[in-house]
Amino acid sequence: MIPIVAFVGRPGSGKTTLLEALIPLLRAKGYRVGTIKHGIHGVHVDQEGKDSWRHAQVGAEVALISTPHGLGVFRTLDHEIGLEELIDSYLSDMDLVLAEGFKGERIPKIEVYREGLEGGLLTKEQDGLLAVVSDAPVPTKVPLFSPDDPQSLADYLEEKFLRRRSREEVQLSIDGRRVPLNPFVEDLFRSLLLAMVAPLKGIGPFSNLALRLNTSHPQKAASP
Amino acid sequence: MIPIVAFVGRPGSGKTTLLEALIPLLRAKGYRVGTIKHGIHGVHVDQEGKDSWRHAQVGAEVALISTPHGLGVFRTLDHEIGLEELIDSYLSDMDLVLAEGFKGERIPKIEVYREGLEGGLLTKEQDGLLAVVSDAPVPTKVPLFSPDDPQSLADYLEEKFLRRRSREEVQLSIDGRRVPLNPFVEDLFRSLLLAMVAPLKGIGPFSNLALRLNTSHPQKAASP
Repeated sequence: MIPIVAFVGRPGSGKTTLLEALIPLLRAKGYRVGTIKHGIHGVHVDQEGKDSWRHAQVGAEVALISTPHGLGVFRTLDHEIGLEELIDSYLSDMDLVLAEGFKGERIPKIEVYREGLEGGLLTKEQDGLLAVVSDAPVPTKVPLFSPDDPQSLADYLEEKFLRRRSREEVQLSIDGRRVPLNPFVEDLFRSLLLAMVAPLKGIGPFSNLALRLNTSHPQKAASP
Repeated sequence: MIPIVAFVGRPGSGKTTLLEALIPLLRAKGYRVGTIKHGIHGVHVDQEGKDSWRHAQVGAEVALISTPHGLGVFRTLDHEIGLEELIDSYLSDMDLVLAEGFKGERIPKIEVYREGLEGGLLTKEQDGLLAVVSDAPVPTKVPLFSPDDPQSLADYLEEKFLRRRSREEVQLSIDGRRVPLNPFVEDLFRSLLLAMVAPLKGIGPFSNLALRLNTSHPQKAASP
């Protein structure tokens, strides 16, 4: 699983500004960083003429814009997708995902605080609070970082999430949901996948393999 | 492979307007439709405050916004991704993909034309031209549809791409590129995948399975 850290805090605490300082520092260490934000209003994928927006308006479930410098994907949903499925679908090649918000999710959190904000900290250690970024002393036992020293926080995140990470893994998803695999099964699947593609022509060294089965009639795994 | 049709035509021919009429008709038939457009300028994923845009500006490779009604993904690229990889990554659960542009790709095309446009048709049968949508007679042997009758075109696309489509398939991607499988290997992989997940607990009937292997050190398929 890709490591994820949520940056939580009251409005005006400086979450986005902190992320803007942190992302280039993590990139400079060579890590691939993705961000994820929760919104309550709409999302617009815009471009000159807004053609893709028009496509989505009339019922295209996915409207995609491809350019040499970037890619925009807009997907219409009738229900909110879970964090794990989002990461699996769109962020699986990242080294670290930084979330803004997602206070209610059971993921590690860093709370951003600023002197003068009413109501004190939003999160406690039992909510997964790892550290606090604040310009003033706060009553907490977790590590405290200054918003003026994002480098120390980048070093902390690297030590906590990136150094000890397993660099090889097998992932199984069924209908978009991750199925946990124990180490024995993961190792078995790894060997089977490598053996399955070994006889195929034209496959050189690779770092990523994906095998998908789509069927129009839902079926039990056990039927051969 | 998900069927894809490119709508090509000179600027002002009415491609986007035609797609806006066509998409709801295909949706009404019960199909899941995705669109894909080629851009030369930037893409912006915008939302209130534009936080995700700010994330991408400072080096986040992927910036994602999740809401209950939709999902926006912005991915920064240093090279343009191929059409097949885009479809495989972002549109694999669609029934049909409608592309706007992509004149140079080896995919089936429908040319949109309007009386008075200079220069005649852009594409010929050898370019994959399937049909023309035009408000005036054009010199072509392929079927001609009127822009005022998108229903006939929707029926044609259904007959051509959706009725006879194989509803079950195995897809293999290595480092994001599709590896073609012959029917024997596809059938073998299908049986192996079903057998691999059969002993796992908690897997009911499913319509989609994905198994991924990620490794930090590129490796030959043959090594066990």
